[in-house]
Amino acid sequence: MIPRYSRPDMTAIWSPETKFRIWYEIEAYACDAQAELGVIPKENAEAVWRARDVEFDVARIDEIEAVTKHDVIAFLTHLAEHIGSEEARFVHQGMTSSDVLDTTLNVQLVRAADILLADMDKLLEALKRRAYEHKDTVRIGRSHGIHAEPTTMGLTFARFYAEMARGKARLQAAREEVATGAISGAVGTFANIDPYVEDYVCQKMGLRPEPISTQVIPRDRHAMFFATLGVIASSMENIAIEIRHMQRTEVLEAEEFFSPGQKGSSAMPHKRNPVLTENLTGLARLVRMAVIPAMENVALWHERDISHSSVERGIAPDATITLDFALNRLAGVIDKLVIYPDTMLKNMNKFKGLVMSQRVLLALTQAGVSREDAYRLVQRNAMKVWEAGKDFKEELLADPEVTAALSADQIEEKFDLGYHTKHVDTIFKRVFESNPL
Amino acid sequence: MIPRYSRPDMTAIWSPETKFRIWYEIEAYACDAQAELGVIPKENAEAVWRARDVEFDVARIDEIEAVTKHDVIAFLTHLAEHIGSEEARFVHQGMTSSDVLDTTLNVQLVRAADILLADMDKLLEALKRRAYEHKDTVRIGRSHGIHAEPTTMGLTFARFYAEMARGKARLQAAREEVATGAISGAVGTFANIDPYVEDYVCQKMGLRPEPISTQVIPRDRHAMFFATLGVIASSMENIAIEIRHMQRTEVLEAEEFFSPGQKGSSAMPHKRNPVLTENLTGLARLVRMAVIPAMENVALWHERDISHSSVERGIAPDATITLDFALNRLAGVIDKLVIYPDTMLKNMNKFKGLVMSQRVLLALTQAGVSREDAYRLVQRNAMKVWEAGKDFKEELLADPEVTAALSADQIEEKFDLGYHTKHVDTIFKRVFESNPL
Amino acid sequence: MIPRYSRPDMTAIWSPETKFRIWYEIEAYACDAQAELGVIPKENAEAVWRARDVEFDVARIDEIEAVTKHDVIAFLTHLAEHIGSEEARFVHQGMTSSDVLDTTLNVQLVRAADILLADMDKLLEALKRRAYEHKDTVRIGRSHGIHAEPTTMGLTFARFYAEMARGKARLQAAREEVATGAISGAVGTFANIDPYVEDYVCQKMGLRPEPISTQVIPRDRHAMFFATLGVIASSMENIAIEIRHMQRTEVLEAEEFFSPGQKGSSAMPHKRNPVLTENLTGLARLVRMAVIPAMENVALWHERDISHSSVERGIAPDATITLDFALNRLAGVIDKLVIYPDTMLKNMNKFKGLVMSQRVLLALTQAGVSREDAYRLVQRNAMKVWEAGKDFKEELLADPEVTAALSADQIEEKFDLGYHTKHVDTIFKRVFESNPL
Amino acid sequence: MIPRYSRPDMTAIWSPETKFRIWYEIEAYACDAQAELGVIPKENAEAVWRARDVEFDVARIDEIEAVTKHDVIAFLTHLAEHIGSEEARFVHQGMTSSDVLDTTLNVQLVRAADILLADMDKLLEALKRRAYEHKDTVRIGRSHGIHAEPTTMGLTFARFYAEMARGKARLQAAREEVATGAISGAVGTFANIDPYVEDYVCQKMGLRPEPISTQVIPRDRHAMFFATLGVIASSMENIAIEIRHMQRTEVLEAEEFFSPGQKGSSAMPHKRNPVLTENLTGLARLVRMAVIPAMENVALWHERDISHSSVERGIAPDATITLDFALNRLAGVIDKLVIYPDTMLKNMNKFKGLVMSQRVLLALTQAGVSREDAYRLVQRNAMKVWEAGKDFKEELLADPEVTAALSADQIEEKFDLGYHTKHVDTIFKRVFESNPL
Repeated sequence: MIPRYSRPDMTAIWSPETKFRIWYEIEAYACDAQAELGVIPKENAEAVWRARDVEFDVARIDEIEAVTKHDVIAFLTHLAEHIGSEEARFVHQGMTSSDVLDTTLNVQLVRAADILLADMDKLLEALKRRAYEHKDTVRIGRSHGIHAEPTTMGLTFARFYAEMARGKARLQAAREEVATGAISGAVGTFANIDPYVEDYVCQKMGLRPEPISTQVIPRDRHAMFFATLGVIASSMENIAIEIRHMQRTEVLEAEEFFSPGQKGSSAMPHKRNPVLTENLTGLARLVRMAVIPAMENVALWHERDISHSSVERGIAPDATITLDFALNRLAGVIDKLVIYPDTMLKNMNKFKGLVMSQRVLLALTQAGVSREDAYRLVQRNAMKVWEAGKDFKEELLADPEVTAALSADQIEEKFDLGYHTKHVDTIFKRVFESNPL
Repeated sequence: MIPRYSRPDMTAIWSPETKFRIWYEIEAYACDAQAELGVIPKENAEAVWRARDVEFDVARIDEIEAVTKHDVIAFLTHLAEHIGSEEARFVHQGMTSSDVLDTTLNVQLVRAADILLADMDKLLEALKRRAYEHKDTVRIGRSHGIHAEPTTMGLTFARFYAEMARGKARLQAAREEVATGAISGAVGTFANIDPYVEDYVCQKMGLRPEPISTQVIPRDRHAMFFATLGVIASSMENIAIEIRHMQRTEVLEAEEFFSPGQKGSSAMPHKRNPVLTENLTGLARLVRMAVIPAMENVALWHERDISHSSVERGIAPDATITLDFALNRLAGVIDKLVIYPDTMLKNMNKFKGLVMSQRVLLALTQAGVSREDAYRLVQRNAMKVWEAGKDFKEELLADPEVTAALSADQIEEKFDLGYHTKHVDTIFKRVFESNPL
Repeated sequence: MIPRYSRPDMTAIWSPETKFRIWYEIEAYACDAQAELGVIPKENAEAVWRARDVEFDVARIDEIEAVTKHDVIAFLTHLAEHIGSEEARFVHQGMTSSDVLDTTLNVQLVRAADILLADMDKLLEALKRRAYEHKDTVRIGRSHGIHAEPTTMGLTFARFYAEMARGKARLQAAREEVATGAISGAVGTFANIDPYVEDYVCQKMGLRPEPISTQVIPRDRHAMFFATLGVIASSMENIAIEIRHMQRTEVLEAEEFFSPGQKGSSAMPHKRNPVLTENLTGLARLVRMAVIPAMENVALWHERDISHSSVERGIAPDATITLDFALNRLAGVIDKLVIYPDTMLKNMNKFKGLVMSQRVLLALTQAGVSREDAYRLVQRNAMKVWEAGKDFKEELLADPEVTAALSADQIEEKFDLGYHTKHVDTIFKRVFESNPL
Repeated sequence: MIPRYSRPDMTAIWSPETKFRIWYEIEAYACDAQAELGVIPKENAEAVWRARDVEFDVARIDEIEAVTKHDVIAFLTHLAEHIGSEEARFVHQGMTSSDVLDTTLNVQLVRAADILLADMDKLLEALKRRAYEHKDTVRIGRSHGIHAEPTTMGLTFARFYAEMARGKARLQAAREEVATGAISGAVGTFANIDPYVEDYVCQKMGLRPEPISTQVIPRDRHAMFFATLGVIASSMENIAIEIRHMQRTEVLEAEEFFSPGQKGSSAMPHKRNPVLTENLTGLARLVRMAVIPAMENVALWHERDISHSSVERGIAPDATITLDFALNRLAGVIDKLVIYPDTMLKNMNKFKGLVMSQRVLLALTQAGVSREDAYRLVQRNAMKVWEAGKDFKEELLADPEVTAALSADQIEEKFDLGYHTKHVDTIFKRVFESNPL
């Protein structure tokens, strides 16, 4: 976890305090279920809830762990200090440490996913708002970084919206994948504990029982979760790269918001760096790097080995905290992104009218000019624009061979931007109304 | 593509012949739609279908491409050689190459997914059959590679079944993700073509229209697809590793099927190597390596750059062909896996009865012996097993301090395997009947 | 291997013909050494060389393998068909298949490295030539994609040269790493073969004996090799991205060479796409994806498992063939890159003189103006450039508060480009003469 | 950074205190050089050293950064609080933030490498000691996890030694790669600062001047550094996997040291889990995950973008801290690893003498028996061992067809372990004396 790239709510999920709180709840609910089954006395189960409002002392638990070399035992020992040794004697009965650890991890991942889903909603809202705001703001579409045909800034936002909406749907699926818990004992056979306890605890913790576990919950679920975060991070990078391109000096179609008081802004007005989206590009790499280790974690030996554990201590907090920070940063960037429609037009017309050359070529052909002749006509006028900075439309209108095939009106019509934007509403309807992922 | 790790049906999807066939169909359907809209003459659309039964000549198309330096133009030129230049003049009108290329890629990925889904069905069937066959075949469960508590071979197969069933559900979702097509023109605005053409072609090709495309279909869809293959490959590795462990000389609880005639089998009966599952371990790495490049492909510049293309030329065939081969190999391995129940029992009893020490410890405590004393009692008898090869149960029965707390029957009961298998049916019901992913 | 991204010499290294040729040489040299030791008869060793000029029949060997299920035995059987069964009976004696396979792989990797090193020389030569050609071609340096201070195009080429020179040194080291062979028997103990045979064969094949092998040559060597290719591919991407940026419509400081006859070039002169460097960006991803699997290959079980084998069948040819193709493509791109020095100047002066604002700020401070005042003075003139398109120098010269602190000459001097290029020769000397990696 | 997997010395390198200390030294040395050049007054340079013994106040610097939004400016402001504003006015003159940041990062990486090199020495020492200790401890070599031929435990340690020695040589090279500094200004042209300052500062900080930098030091150096850590981590995993295999219940040829007092050790003597090496397996994944992001960092836009920065804030401390911890843990594991030579022999003889079957086969052939007959003879005796638990040697001695070809002495000789260990000294000499990497 890199403090400067973290937000408190997500960080809190991964704190020792939260972890012990979840451990406590799992143990307490398990006691309730065991008492209900008659396996342990009801009063012992009730006694556990006396610690309901306790804030567990992390330093004290660490101290005990230094002796016992076992984190769950250390916690249980500390719990007994609160509720009494005698009362605590049935806590954890029939359970194995992994029952607590794995169920807790999934509770944390589910909560992390919920925060990320809320982040995505915020981002989606910003993208939608900016899409409608710039639905008709014409800019040049580019393939290969080269001017192609006109599009609109609204379409750019709309496609990011559609992509993030897909990301959200994937995250919801990934959240479901990890929303399972297991209280199934040493190798998952329920030898020492009734499946009812698992059912009960899972229901209380907002999880489904893992249909079949070993000592651990199978790690393909987690691999899918982190892979999904990796895809979302890549979509985030996609947006970040677009903005970085838009802000580069020669393009300058947009800028990350720059507060008026921000130092240096006006003495070097040309030097406003897209540092937020550059940062997001790097953060995407950080999120993505969790994917392969999470996949390498799947193939555990027999009923479990513990190689996955150190990996998850790293990637589970790191990937979720980083992505949470990044999605929020991105939502803010989108929300306040300064758009320069005039520059968009200016850029589009850099080579006066030349982006329409293909349309003119087509029109000439359709007007009966042979392909070869049409090509020659377009070429000789295009070169005047390219080499001598002339205006393409004017050159065409002044070329008798061209005007022999196309009327002035027809030529004018080829330069009508409305031709390119006529289906924007259709696309917006698809994206924002039908919502077909 | 590594020939020895490929199967013909999947390989065929990625052949130039198949590619050109799909190109042809897209172009032909697009003409139909254009004719319906009145954009091109009906007879021209109909003329395209004259090539319906043509096998396109890949060498000829390559020859043309060597001149035109453009694959789609080369194909269209060749198509015109079949249906006549005049008739072919409206083919591809208003479309951009990517309309054909991207829609084709997704048709291929969908077909590849369908083959993979069938592979998974085959694997699932084998896993289920072997699970029921060995539902009650007891073996020792292991955590950390160390004996823990008994489980059954059926549970092992059942958990692989559950994991692969999740994999299948993920693949179905990933298939849906890439089942889109786009016929939207140079930058995705439909400037030169009506959205109806896209609708029509997609419906004919078994795809949904991409709600919003640029020049290309957004690559987050493909990233998700390859990430999903990576997770499935990791689950495959999980199964492979289990079998490799089972076959190692000291364990020998199972062996990959070894045909009686296979050279060397009987002169060195101890030297039957689990080469198929070792191979699958490597193939899992090969499938997984597509994941990161697929994610790096998402952030294309503006309306597209072509960096993704070379990556996909590699990973799309390679990852699908390899996984198809691997899943089939794995289904075969599972189907014929030779299981040795006797060795399983022998292994479990390696330290005669010692795996029950924890149960005895618990029983002593429950019988009122203090934790310290119970521990001491178990320890002194356990050490006789560990160091002198004694039988744990017999030692306990001969220890008066133990028998003072537990009757002979109670001690016997702690060594009853039925204790560990009593919930196997419950778990099987969860996995094979309720099917809760 | 993607045919369109491959070159014949590198591809030939990975052909079955080459592989069998190397197998043959290893076996033949091993026989020579064995004969020298007196282990096998001299005439049998000599007989093996009768096949010296044979082109082994791959189809025939495959046919035999289909029966024997063992590639090395199939080859030996085929060899016997050429030199006679009786004469061939001592071939391979005391050796294990891996002795042949692993030594062969390293011969192939060494040869592949030699081709790649030659590729890099070609690229280095092109970079050096273009660096000197454009040593003094001034362009704006950019941080964050935003104009910063002037630099020269020659410095850009020079830094790519320096980076690739480092890459070459790394590849030389990686080549040394894999230049080992092993003829050490089933588990590397030389139980059945004298170490002298290993010495002899390695010396003949241009390798060093592996100091300690198991059944296989340790895979950390190969991991390092592929990691090194990954770093070189990333450097290649670095150059590719620079060119793609330079070619984008708004920048247009360079273009990939576009042959005059290339279709579409002059009817759409604005639409020359940097497809080669985009392609190189994708190829970099393909090379890089070999890195992690190569690292996952290191941890083989005990004296070997065969999981690495399928991975290497994929990545060894793919990564080397792709990188060979890519380095050559890049050398060609650099060699013929069209540079537009005029546009470079035009871009630099987009905001007339504004890139010098920081220098002016510094000069004012050094002239005794307080930081606050200096900032205010620069700011008010900068804003006239930014908002009203004025010329920065002229505004400064017309601002009495500025001229009170700095003379006209002093102001002029701040706009002298020579200030920025004065150390270019020093840097060139460092890069091209001292060559301190 | 995961606290439980970190050691204080390495962690200290990445603390804010250390960072500011290095910043300070760079700035102070730069002032010395500037004074020497006459660019700034000598007394100002001297004044900077007044803060020589200051412990910079991280909280105070953070406080200033919260206002200035710029870390280097915040530090310089704080520095001025110590040495006086007037005296501090020439600090950092002509430099750009990256000059400080990048040079500092490399100082940190060099120091981190030095700690890692010391770790590797410790590990190498332990491996060497254990190798000589068990030079002649015979155990079965295994390919595919299946018994092959005898080897010795010393050879196992020796090959890990050789692998780690290669790792150390690689790390030394990688350390050299990043041991460069840059004080070259905004885009690396030395426009505002003389190259002498760079020379001077680098020499003082133990670095070489970067031959050609932009605003930043080129990131291929760092990519190589992290790739090297990834290879070393993979070698570490290789050792860890071996130990995990040796400790598994059925093999039990070694155990991680288990302190006598460690809870549960003797009540469940069979349940000593190889948790340290399992942990190392996971830590290897964590180190390796830095490799791809480090490579993605290479292709920065033009003279720099800042996307690499967030990545390095994560991976630079994480990968070095984790690897430092892991190498130390591994050195400890090796140092105290409990080896069970008796079990090694017992395992080797699991199928009484059967591992010698190949040697017997060869001997029969060499004695003139036809291949077919030799195979038949070996097979029929091998099957008695395999199926009925007989002793292979005894069966052979009792088989008249065998004894017709081989004398009793010759048969005995085939079971002589010395045959397999005769070259151990040669190999040890290669590894520990000649040290040919």
